[in-house]
Amino acid sequence: MTPSDAHSAETDETEPAGIRIIPLRGAPEAQSGDDIAAMALAAVARSNLRLQDGDILVVTQKLVSKAEGLLVDLNTIEPSDLALRYAQQWGRDPRQVEVVLRESVRIVRMDRGLIISQTRHGFVCANAGVDASNVPGEDIVCLLPRDPDASAERLRAALARQAGAELAIIISDSFGRPWRQGIVNVALGVAGMAPLADYRGQPDDFGRIMNSSVMAVADEIASATELATGKVERTPFVLVRGYPYQRAAGSGAQILMDPAADLFR
Amino acid sequence: MTPSDAHSAETDETEPAGIRIIPLRGAPEAQSGDDIAAMALAAVARSNLRLQDGDILVVTQKLVSKAEGLLVDLNTIEPSDLALRYAQQWGRDPRQVEVVLRESVRIVRMDRGLIISQTRHGFVCANAGVDASNVPGEDIVCLLPRDPDASAERLRAALARQAGAELAIIISDSFGRPWRQGIVNVALGVAGMAPLADYRGQPDDFGRIMNSSVMAVADEIASATELATGKVERTPFVLVRGYPYQRAAGSGAQILMDPAADLFR
Repeated sequence: MTPSDAHSAETDETEPAGIRIIPLRGAPEAQSGDDIAAMALAAVARSNLRLQDGDILVVTQKLVSKAEGLLVDLNTIEPSDLALRYAQQWGRDPRQVEVVLRESVRIVRMDRGLIISQTRHGFVCANAGVDASNVPGEDIVCLLPRDPDASAERLRAALARQAGAELAIIISDSFGRPWRQGIVNVALGVAGMAPLADYRGQPDDFGRIMNSSVMAVADEIASATELATGKVERTPFVLVRGYPYQRAAGSGAQILMDPAADLFR
Repeated sequence: MTPSDAHSAETDETEPAGIRIIPLRGAPEAQSGDDIAAMALAAVARSNLRLQDGDILVVTQKLVSKAEGLLVDLNTIEPSDLALRYAQQWGRDPRQVEVVLRESVRIVRMDRGLIISQTRHGFVCANAGVDASNVPGEDIVCLLPRDPDASAERLRAALARQAGAELAIIISDSFGRPWRQGIVNVALGVAGMAPLADYRGQPDDFGRIMNSSVMAVADEIASATELATGKVERTPFVLVRGYPYQRAAGSGAQILMDPAADLFR
């Protein structure tokens, strides 16, 4: 087969390539101490892929937290009076409520059994990101990574070293939001790319300067990859190929809004 | 070339196909009265594509609004005292402030020159979706479609008729959100697919029943397509291929949160 054959077949009707969201299926359950880069490389190889410069590898918070040993056995937790009373009122596990309170630095809302709070990282989300789904055991909950940006940067550096490819890394999680139903994936940790794309000062299609167009592209990428994973399939890694991101040290913390500037709050 | 050659070339290293986000570049500027379905079909043909059952066509609010004639000449607007005073205080155009107020049914926040409000559709967003970017003329602003779900359904039905393909349609716009910087694309109007994917009651990978996993997949798809368009390229149509959505009548209004149930508000 000649290169031109390959091209016409690959692009099918000379179809534009666009961006591809490629789930890397079948990763094993992560254990505390596991090497995330090795797991990622195994997942890439299992999909018969090779990492390329410019790829974005999105990994779920759950995998990172498990590899970093951030599972808590609720049998080791002594609930406070606050946790006991709230759990009793709403039929929740007081030990889990206690863990949520310990992972929070500010309570936004505590009602109907839910806790919306701010984590020490600055994320505002349900239950401080403490999660009992997809964990091994009835009495186990999973915490958010202590420093998702550092976790992302470690993975980026390891993959650059071991695979020889300059990637961007996003650690994703599912957050609720006001005004709209359902949860969407967002970027907790980012490395290797600018998480925001700033169009301010650029002319629009009519030559007028745009002044409020900062897109949260890392969140949009995280959302895109959730479509490829689903909640009940074991797909902690998703590769995003064909998105021309801006290379930068990057950080998920850059997406956090200064409360004083937040008119939506 | 044999079919097996085509397959190996198309999938390149037998790479999994995943989801593709395909921008349909180079659409002409929409004018009031334009046939959106005809524009979409022209954009698809220009990209050497054919619509297929199961494709999702995402179209920007801006194109839909222009085709539906929802541009307002600010020279026809008489600002109220409220609009005059707020505009003077923050250096804004009082006629534009007046249009925002007229498009709002509830003010969430009015500070620092911005207006966060609820539209009559129920969307909570900046400036009631009234937008002066990418419009032809200094004194022109663009309103949101009157009924984005009806616009989406008209486009879906027309494409089913004219292209013989059962698609889902999403009309997208960029919204800000609390707590996080930057704006992300969300779904205003939806037709042909369930906008929410409800995993509640399904077992997770460990057989435990999940109880808070309703994903706003239409919003996630809208976000994914923004990555393929950018703000300064004329790409009002993006095709999403390979996402197995749930077929349904669908509606963007289904994503709106009942205020009484909204703990994030």
